[in-house]
Amino acid sequence: MAEQKKMVEAITPMEEDFAKWYTDIVKKAELMDYTSVRGCMVIEPYGWAIWENIQHILDTTFKELGHENVSMPMFIPESLLNKEKDHVQGFAPEVAWVTMGGNEKLQERMCVRPTSETLFCDHYAKVIQSWRDLPKLYNQWCSVVRWEKTTRPFLRSVEFHWQEGHTMHETPEEAKAETEQMLKVYADFCENDLAMPVIKGRKTDKEKFAGAEATYTIEAMMHDGKALQSGTSHYFGDGFAKAFDVTFQGRDNSSCHPFQTSWGMSTRIIGGIIMTHGDNNGLVLPPAIAPIQVIILPIAQHKPGVLDKAHELRERLKKNFRVKIDESEQSPGWKFAQYEMKGVPLRLEIGPKDMEKNQCVLVRRNDREKTFVDLDNLEAAITEQLEAVRQGIYDKALARRESMTYSATSMDELKDIADSKPGFIKAMWCGDEACEEKLKEVAGVSSRCMPFEQEHISDTCVCCGKPAKSMVYWGKAY
Amino acid sequence: MAEQKKMVEAITPMEEDFAKWYTDIVKKAELMDYTSVRGCMVIEPYGWAIWENIQHILDTTFKELGHENVSMPMFIPESLLNKEKDHVQGFAPEVAWVTMGGNEKLQERMCVRPTSETLFCDHYAKVIQSWRDLPKLYNQWCSVVRWEKTTRPFLRSVEFHWQEGHTMHETPEEAKAETEQMLKVYADFCENDLAMPVIKGRKTDKEKFAGAEATYTIEAMMHDGKALQSGTSHYFGDGFAKAFDVTFQGRDNSSCHPFQTSWGMSTRIIGGIIMTHGDNNGLVLPPAIAPIQVIILPIAQHKPGVLDKAHELRERLKKNFRVKIDESEQSPGWKFAQYEMKGVPLRLEIGPKDMEKNQCVLVRRNDREKTFVDLDNLEAAITEQLEAVRQGIYDKALARRESMTYSATSMDELKDIADSKPGFIKAMWCGDEACEEKLKEVAGVSSRCMPFEQEHISDTCVCCGKPAKSMVYWGKAY
Repeated sequence: MAEQKKMVEAITPMEEDFAKWYTDIVKKAELMDYTSVRGCMVIEPYGWAIWENIQHILDTTFKELGHENVSMPMFIPESLLNKEKDHVQGFAPEVAWVTMGGNEKLQERMCVRPTSETLFCDHYAKVIQSWRDLPKLYNQWCSVVRWEKTTRPFLRSVEFHWQEGHTMHETPEEAKAETEQMLKVYADFCENDLAMPVIKGRKTDKEKFAGAEATYTIEAMMHDGKALQSGTSHYFGDGFAKAFDVTFQGRDNSSCHPFQTSWGMSTRIIGGIIMTHGDNNGLVLPPAIAPIQVIILPIAQHKPGVLDKAHELRERLKKNFRVKIDESEQSPGWKFAQYEMKGVPLRLEIGPKDMEKNQCVLVRRNDREKTFVDLDNLEAAITEQLEAVRQGIYDKALARRESMTYSATSMDELKDIADSKPGFIKAMWCGDEACEEKLKEVAGVSSRCMPFEQEHISDTCVCCGKPAKSMVYWGKAY
Repeated sequence: MAEQKKMVEAITPMEEDFAKWYTDIVKKAELMDYTSVRGCMVIEPYGWAIWENIQHILDTTFKELGHENVSMPMFIPESLLNKEKDHVQGFAPEVAWVTMGGNEKLQERMCVRPTSETLFCDHYAKVIQSWRDLPKLYNQWCSVVRWEKTTRPFLRSVEFHWQEGHTMHETPEEAKAETEQMLKVYADFCENDLAMPVIKGRKTDKEKFAGAEATYTIEAMMHDGKALQSGTSHYFGDGFAKAFDVTFQGRDNSSCHPFQTSWGMSTRIIGGIIMTHGDNNGLVLPPAIAPIQVIILPIAQHKPGVLDKAHELRERLKKNFRVKIDESEQSPGWKFAQYEMKGVPLRLEIGPKDMEKNQCVLVRRNDREKTFVDLDNLEAAITEQLEAVRQGIYDKALARRESMTYSATSMDELKDIADSKPGFIKAMWCGDEACEEKLKEVAGVSSRCMPFEQEHISDTCVCCGKPAKSMVYWGKAY
């Protein structure tokens, strides 16, 4: 099929140039477009529909767990940003500053929010009075701005979309439980809905969020063996609460500071979906978030009754699935390639011969497996095949991660693996930041996380040989 | 009931001070909070839930009509803003300028979008090639910034949330039809879902959007007789397309410019809901967008079985309605006042005596009308009572508007009405901007719109006495 070949050739194979493969996909699947605004992108309808599906699933879960959505201002006055020392040091170098309003110079400049801990604290200081007001479980969906030097679609951009949850609790235990709960929400969402296996763990102090006591993370492995930090959840203790003078009257009438968390997942995850599941024919979308779950392609559509039948199926299926029909004059080969490019999980072919047999053909995007399905049984078959896509891409991603995860017990071994094999390296660590820096310097890897599921690789730190405190996943990251 | 009295006293009566009544409600119903960010507010959970309900209804309609959501950057480089002359003159004086990124001064400053015509055109120039690519029907939900000097919660703030639709069409007729269609969507939404009667019409050239050929508007009357522009829809012709070099190959292979529209509705509408339906006991919410449609209040809740019954009803009703139960230790009087303040359309009371009779009591927020309802018939009764609330508040608002709308045939008469009676004034106009300015100067009123439903008030312009071209609604506006 010439047309199919031609379209497929338009994507650079990932083995040849992974970065080019990635940008080919985001452009050709029409997820985004570049703009004349430095480091900012247009998210096009197909890309935004993916994000809307992600939002819907996460937002429903957040609300089921008692969270409420709010909207904070997009600006932070400089004096407010300055209130928590570690936080401002972390973020001030990478914010965009508004200095003029209309024709007037502002008395105090404001940054566009890079994250909103400061704004939430400013508000919480006003609305929290008593232990009865706790917990406060707020979330917002918005975009934030970080003045990144090098940008890549979805993975790193000056403006990006996310949700940021900010909660306040009466006790450290409650706040820590919230931090862990939300990390689990992200991990379950990635594994169940996005079919992305993730490693749950804690960040080292070097890698944690500016101002946090502890940062938890889920780390996913991309096709090229690099890690993508896919969601984080932070425990702040009462550090911000003290800096912002957030107090409440405790059960014993004493004045207390509440304990705080924040947690976020961003449009970056769309980059993660592409680099976990995509192949040389294009995008492969997990069914839960695919804007089109089933594309109906009429075969020999000029033959009598074919288009009518295709429309009949669309009307029937749209009650349960996100379904679209392509009855354009393009050839079947062009259409096959087009919807493979767009990552649609299932293709439904219906032609005159199928109609005679009261059947249709379902073809899975991930492995092109064909199934002939009795039309009387179509809904159940589609549900089953969508689940087969989900399971298939999950298993493949997990097998890849396992085959690309290594252990090292010495610096030489670690460096050798890091130099020759892309992937994750499990190695022991003494807990000393100097060793972490040395691994970066010598082997070019950073700590991804101290996984919750610890393993014993050796007794001593892979770098300094002192007694080890924890097993760490090391790797290169986006 | 002392507690009820006490809470109600906390709202300034609207007859005493309408502005104070308004801000009392937005604060006491917990819709928003002020911030330390100039002119920006926190939209609190109850206020944001109203906006989410508005978003859901409008977004569903937009999509049914074939529109697709996208996301454009929040920044506009100065050179891009400058491309359409009328547009930049209209907006440049009221934008916030980003001049620094991190520690570096930007080579070209960027404004935070006050509206996104320029960004959409920049993108459309790239993605529109052929007539086959038209129409493009894009929309985005976002916040925008206008450097307003005087701000009021929801009605006028530096940052506000809205949706902005931006569409491109092959012909002027198609674009005009879209403009009219979207104005009708807004009008139907206001009348059916928000129970707000509106007047549909066209803005005069003086009042139209910067850069538009024609602006259409829906105007609602508030309690105090002032107008609120509640949604607008603009026809641009091909002016922006020419300025931004958006071209397509037409059906005859010639190079053409497409014809453009934009349309928006914002969080301002929440201010409109308050000032249309609210009363001296607080907010009154239209059922379609009320975060809580039915508040269940157990009466004598310490009596055996009452709380269980209340919970049973909640579980049963939540399948069809947004329902909440308040089983706190506050007195019934306090709770009555609290949920009246919050504008919950229906209160459901259930106590031991009701249980004996297998009934409950439904009380409407708007007129406190009580209905005793057989529990076997509860869902139908609630649906009926919610509709009665909607119809009741719509009728009341319409009757008020009618009683506060006057006609004038001379300048003296118009000035007399404008000075003594709040409301709308219908009067004829010659179409000359000088007369429009004189009405403002002499009577303090501006043209609200030239309504689609024209009436004949007199033959000549109320101001200059020349032959009249159209009947105009005049009034004071938010």
